[in-house]
Amino acid sequence: MGSVYFDNHSGTRIDDRVFEEMVPYLKEDYGNAQSLHFPGGRARKAMEKARKSTGELIGAKENEIYFTSCGSEANNLAVKGAAFGSQQKGKHIIVSAVEHFSVLYSAKRLQQMGFEVTSVPVDKYGIVVLDELEKAIRKDTILVSIQHANPEIGTIQPIEEISKIVHENKVLFHTDAVSTAGIIPVDVNNFGVDLLTLAGSQFHGPKGAAALYVRKGVRIIPQIDGGIQEKGRRAGTENIPCIAGLGKACEIAKNEMPENIKKMTALRDQLISELPGKVEHIYLNGHPEQRLPDNINFSIEFIEGEGMLLFLNDRGISITSGSACTSKALKMSHVLSAINVDPSIGQGSVSMTLSKYTKKEDIDYFLSEFPPIVKRLRAMSPLYDYFLKTGNRQVAGPGTDYEHEHEHEESDE
Amino acid sequence: MGSVYFDNHSGTRIDDRVFEEMVPYLKEDYGNAQSLHFPGGRARKAMEKARKSTGELIGAKENEIYFTSCGSEANNLAVKGAAFGSQQKGKHIIVSAVEHFSVLYSAKRLQQMGFEVTSVPVDKYGIVVLDELEKAIRKDTILVSIQHANPEIGTIQPIEEISKIVHENKVLFHTDAVSTAGIIPVDVNNFGVDLLTLAGSQFHGPKGAAALYVRKGVRIIPQIDGGIQEKGRRAGTENIPCIAGLGKACEIAKNEMPENIKKMTALRDQLISELPGKVEHIYLNGHPEQRLPDNINFSIEFIEGEGMLLFLNDRGISITSGSACTSKALKMSHVLSAINVDPSIGQGSVSMTLSKYTKKEDIDYFLSEFPPIVKRLRAMSPLYDYFLKTGNRQVAGPGTDYEHEHEHEESDE
Repeated sequence: MGSVYFDNHSGTRIDDRVFEEMVPYLKEDYGNAQSLHFPGGRARKAMEKARKSTGELIGAKENEIYFTSCGSEANNLAVKGAAFGSQQKGKHIIVSAVEHFSVLYSAKRLQQMGFEVTSVPVDKYGIVVLDELEKAIRKDTILVSIQHANPEIGTIQPIEEISKIVHENKVLFHTDAVSTAGIIPVDVNNFGVDLLTLAGSQFHGPKGAAALYVRKGVRIIPQIDGGIQEKGRRAGTENIPCIAGLGKACEIAKNEMPENIKKMTALRDQLISELPGKVEHIYLNGHPEQRLPDNINFSIEFIEGEGMLLFLNDRGISITSGSACTSKALKMSHVLSAINVDPSIGQGSVSMTLSKYTKKEDIDYFLSEFPPIVKRLRAMSPLYDYFLKTGNRQVAGPGTDYEHEHEHEESDE
Repeated sequence: MGSVYFDNHSGTRIDDRVFEEMVPYLKEDYGNAQSLHFPGGRARKAMEKARKSTGELIGAKENEIYFTSCGSEANNLAVKGAAFGSQQKGKHIIVSAVEHFSVLYSAKRLQQMGFEVTSVPVDKYGIVVLDELEKAIRKDTILVSIQHANPEIGTIQPIEEISKIVHENKVLFHTDAVSTAGIIPVDVNNFGVDLLTLAGSQFHGPKGAAALYVRKGVRIIPQIDGGIQEKGRRAGTENIPCIAGLGKACEIAKNEMPENIKKMTALRDQLISELPGKVEHIYLNGHPEQRLPDNINFSIEFIEGEGMLLFLNDRGISITSGSACTSKALKMSHVLSAINVDPSIGQGSVSMTLSKYTKKEDIDYFLSEFPPIVKRLRAMSPLYDYFLKTGNRQVAGPGTDYEHEHEHEESDE
């Protein structure tokens, strides 16, 4: 890997103990969990052990855990599955403006199929405006989907307050906890959620296994139809090695969470406190306190994100400009737009996510390498030149293009 | 594992070379294929290498290969995705009576959403009745989905003839090749298909990676919405280790296919020719020649499938009574119903799938262990007792329950 990896939201290193847990199912124990014979039984046992650990991480019963192949699939199942499952009660759903695309585009798909969708705004820190949420709920609202924390800017939502508002109105509540489960405490009962998404690849489990928590009694319509797997809610041969890995990752995350939080918070805070002394015209995005311990997001004036990424990459530092699934698109993200970052600044934004493997040396290295890169990039910037000469900023005009970058789907290619 | 494994349709042993290909992506190279940095680039490179190998296995271009998490997901994407993609032309689709549940239940889901579905019958060998297919095609037919071969009874469809009929009528043609790709030759151009499903877990690749071939220009609507992965047709962080494993499995399968076919065919034919001499009242299901080299399926009178499975399991022989996702349900399968097996016989049916790792000793062991098990089970059977005493069979009466076993979905559990 790059010597310093600050892109853990896009995928974490698999813990060695997780890998060891997976190996038997990648080698000898290749049975199908639905088969009646001994190899099938061993696969089934591994899966049920993982289901228990996964439930325990979030305070859920094991029979409320449904495995999927990734967080996006689980979010699709939550949003579309619950919407179709409750459509006789109404066809209105609510999301926040800063949701992951797998929630936003599930909602958009539902819109094409006759549902109505309201997007609730967030404040300048990325916190959902609770008054607006309350106003948005209608008699025909059947589902609210609001993330636990934002993967890009790190803001943690007041999930219990949101839950209270939603449930007072007898509406189902889904939270996308992909960026929090396994990293900070998540408890479906304290939160009072009906559906919750988590993904093992965010906390040192393998890619290829995620889970949707579905409270007992909540009706969801499967999105992958076919076999009897996952009690008929998700067909397809179970990916036992990855599921076993997810279970182990949950177990480890639960046991070691307090020390990991402490460690990551200290490193995060070192960055947040030292960067402004080393780089001028730098702005922290997201909430200063209600923030993921692993996340730093800042905008730097007079610089473009792409250049920063490439120069950092050249120095062995892996970083991203936004959420993983849009990082190839270098326009300002929908999240920064939602918190009203000025596009002229927002294009020079960086999201850094640490992990339990991040070391103080990594932070120190970044703090020594980054300022000269900023200096070099600014030396090439006509906007910075103009600022130095006049003391004025060239503000993005009305013609500036910062349209949604996500116009890709249903290509005929 | 059980010492003798005849349930390869439910999942195959991962080839050691496939495992070795996966390991780097399970350890050091955990980057996200969508990230711009070096680790992301390495993940992307692994994925594109796998896409090329997967295409080469089936004569497709790499940009026509879309990775999914399993064959069921790919079948859902093919059937629902193509149906929604062409719904402006019509809302009628055709499947065969012996399709995998991921096709049949996708079709059923579409039916609930306003589409019409026609199921085309098969003959006593499981071959689609071509006249009936021709008659079923209407002006508003948009999709025909007929499998390449049946995983349970091994019958191979005359795919080129079917393709010709479908395309003469300007209808899209999908084939589920999960039980053939990687095992016998599959070529999308010779077949003339528009969509084709394959799954690595069927030919010594890992669970967790499958692919849908989509001919360039065919419009499909994504079933997992969100990110830009797979050109917007399948959102979600790519499972690089499993995808890399799938690619390697494709490469190996292509190179070693002729010798594997030869070996498996000889073992299959030994079973087919020797069993009737060792067990009375035994009937081969499926086509005698147009048959997968790895498949044997037979029905045994005066016996129940469950007892057979358990007694065989006790002797270290892993076997299944039907397709993987219904093997817990021990009623007669929809496939045996479709080929008109008498339910009194069909309940004593066994499906055996060999692999390239099956040895002659495994076959010999089975041939020595199986006849005494049949004898023990028949000694407990009142039906057999009646037959011995009277020479007559008790035929299943009109009240016999052999309803479809698949009434599980949308549970509120």
